[in-house]
Amino acid sequence: MGKVLVRLKGFQKLTSVEEALRLWFHAFQTGERRIVNVLLREALNRVLAEDVVAQEDLPRFDRAAVDGYALKAEDTVGASQFKPLRLQLTVGLEVSSKQAKQVWTGNPIPKGADAVVMLENVKALGDTLEVYVQLVPGENVSRKGEDIKKGELAVKAGTRLNPYHLGLLAGLGLSEVKVAAKPRIAIVATGNELTEAGSVLLENQVFETNRTMLSTLCSELDAEPLDLGIAKDEARDIAERVSLGLKVGDAVITTGGTSVGGLDLVPEVVNNLGKPGIIVHGVAMRPAMPTALAVVENKPIAILSGNPVAAVVGFEAFARPLISRLLGMEKTEPRPALKATLTRKVVTALGRKTYVRVKVTHEGNEFYAEPVSARGSGTITTMTRSNGFVIVPENREGLVAGETVTVYMFRPAEEK
Amino acid sequence: MGKVLVRLKGFQKLTSVEEALRLWFHAFQTGERRIVNVLLREALNRVLAEDVVAQEDLPRFDRAAVDGYALKAEDTVGASQFKPLRLQLTVGLEVSSKQAKQVWTGNPIPKGADAVVMLENVKALGDTLEVYVQLVPGENVSRKGEDIKKGELAVKAGTRLNPYHLGLLAGLGLSEVKVAAKPRIAIVATGNELTEAGSVLLENQVFETNRTMLSTLCSELDAEPLDLGIAKDEARDIAERVSLGLKVGDAVITTGGTSVGGLDLVPEVVNNLGKPGIIVHGVAMRPAMPTALAVVENKPIAILSGNPVAAVVGFEAFARPLISRLLGMEKTEPRPALKATLTRKVVTALGRKTYVRVKVTHEGNEFYAEPVSARGSGTITTMTRSNGFVIVPENREGLVAGETVTVYMFRPAEEK
Repeated sequence: MGKVLVRLKGFQKLTSVEEALRLWFHAFQTGERRIVNVLLREALNRVLAEDVVAQEDLPRFDRAAVDGYALKAEDTVGASQFKPLRLQLTVGLEVSSKQAKQVWTGNPIPKGADAVVMLENVKALGDTLEVYVQLVPGENVSRKGEDIKKGELAVKAGTRLNPYHLGLLAGLGLSEVKVAAKPRIAIVATGNELTEAGSVLLENQVFETNRTMLSTLCSELDAEPLDLGIAKDEARDIAERVSLGLKVGDAVITTGGTSVGGLDLVPEVVNNLGKPGIIVHGVAMRPAMPTALAVVENKPIAILSGNPVAAVVGFEAFARPLISRLLGMEKTEPRPALKATLTRKVVTALGRKTYVRVKVTHEGNEFYAEPVSARGSGTITTMTRSNGFVIVPENREGLVAGETVTVYMFRPAEEK
Repeated sequence: MGKVLVRLKGFQKLTSVEEALRLWFHAFQTGERRIVNVLLREALNRVLAEDVVAQEDLPRFDRAAVDGYALKAEDTVGASQFKPLRLQLTVGLEVSSKQAKQVWTGNPIPKGADAVVMLENVKALGDTLEVYVQLVPGENVSRKGEDIKKGELAVKAGTRLNPYHLGLLAGLGLSEVKVAAKPRIAIVATGNELTEAGSVLLENQVFETNRTMLSTLCSELDAEPLDLGIAKDEARDIAERVSLGLKVGDAVITTGGTSVGGLDLVPEVVNNLGKPGIIVHGVAMRPAMPTALAVVENKPIAILSGNPVAAVVGFEAFARPLISRLLGMEKTEPRPALKATLTRKVVTALGRKTYVRVKVTHEGNEFYAEPVSARGSGTITTMTRSNGFVIVPENREGLVAGETVTVYMFRPAEEK
């Protein structure tokens, strides 16, 4: 314990975000991943667990891409509005020279035909068809395998499935798909001053907000939050809840009790729960500097600040990469990012990776990022008034007005 | 029927996307919205039905923003590392002149104090505190109401609730929230060639993909898809399913059977189901030109193309605004948009609003949009290989390489 206490003392040494994440990730193995089979329509937003390879060509046969008449393109040479060409309509299985057969979008191309003339470019007169255009072979035909060929990779393992992936998998005939089981994230809030929303507030009490935010942030990423309630600032209460979290969860997140103050017990308590214990305490970032990261019995624990904004920034920097890893993704899933012009200067501290909340709006092609001012990291409305983060690197002392910045969005930009 | 058949004939008149949407939206009323009460943690991604106004200041009292000692700022004038100041530690309820009282982050500021000195800037010596910095009134204090004041709008009706909104609502003491009930969208696919994924394919059959895509696109927006299966290209089968959709749903989406071909029955069938019937048939867009929009008995029906890409583009242009409206949002919910440099030229037809699929990647602050080439609107892999749309307006014949474009994203851009 001595070692850690020294390290905690006033955060004399801060670790960079990247290094903290690297050290933490090296301190545990994720082991064999749990995989579940789900119906295609239940698979939205889930993460594919195995590569899906096309078992058939798609389309399975050459087919009409439009409504019209299948024919031999060579028969249409020279045809025009002024010099219509006449073909014999057939209902046979095959299209011979100077013949045409009616087809609807999606129908197989009859044997002998190699193009489809659109309805707009013909006139049917009894069993004769007048054609007003010249076609090239393959025109208006969807070729066998043009969408995807048998044996080709359709969707890669680690992909978060959107409606279009699911459409492709349906087109390949799948009705079920193997996805990563939801990682179980146990969440414990700590703090004597905290009480549950919905209950009556006593003097000096405040409603607990972090579990609501962190659990829904987990849900968004397809992790399953396990609510382990509010612990008092007492070693035994904290230890019991974190231990239970280690038992029922794949990872634990705590909030509160991470600073250097006398009531900030969580890192000490976690360090006593098992090996290797605390890996990092104090990160060179703002907000969320007092974040600690630990591993106990091969399970990761993110010890986040109790300040709501610091807690969600800590989640962003550490829990989000963790969940990507637990889901079997190759790298941390990116937030939607965009490029915008900063409207006002921002001052940050050298040596601190700083998460600046901004509100992005756009007018046509022009995107603007307006910093949302905030006095403290406890000001939760800065998160509801903003729609993204700009991350100022450690080697900058701020950003200048008019600078082009990359914004990581948590809500779409609105048009002005 | 005569009127409509004429209009259908070869789509002699195409309506612009904006005009089509306007005409359609004017042809029905949404009536009283259904509202449901849900637990805060079940409210992620749902749309708030009523303004939420803060019933209390947040914070409810001035409180310490850091761990340290509460004191009177005026007592610290001139204090520095070289000229420490000495205060008397107190455990009383009030801080008098030349006194200080220990506080932890979140604690109420004791009466008489107006600032908090951080632990790093003091040394406690028995019942005396050495202070090494000068403070201004309010320093390290979170002011009562600084986050949000009693009576202020916390979250506006029509907002899609993200984890941070939910955190704010929890902080205000709410455990439940009123959200828009999920609009029920009945979905019918039509086509003799279609069969269910999971079943054995007969000759000339293909697996149906559109219901999977459209139902999950609905789910993403918090609408409830109702699967009404696959109709044969027969008037009676189509009429029965659409009628059932009108009965059980707030709106109906069909796919297939929308062109000018002989098997394209859906607009005719829908037009026979009731007044006003078909509002628009044929839209000046690519893909999805054969889209039709109808209203029957005050319920909207979107009649989309059977080609998968045309179907999802039709959804984007018409069903997405519809669902925003049914959810009670002020305007159509924007997709995440960003600004990027087009890497290759794109050719489009004058007079057609064209949805070009692109793949956006970024290198630092530079975002590039690479058009994803596709032969037909049936090529579903163009949707899985891309992550956004560029919309080329009707008055352009394409876009040039190097041009700056706005991309509407359906998947985050990846870093190169």
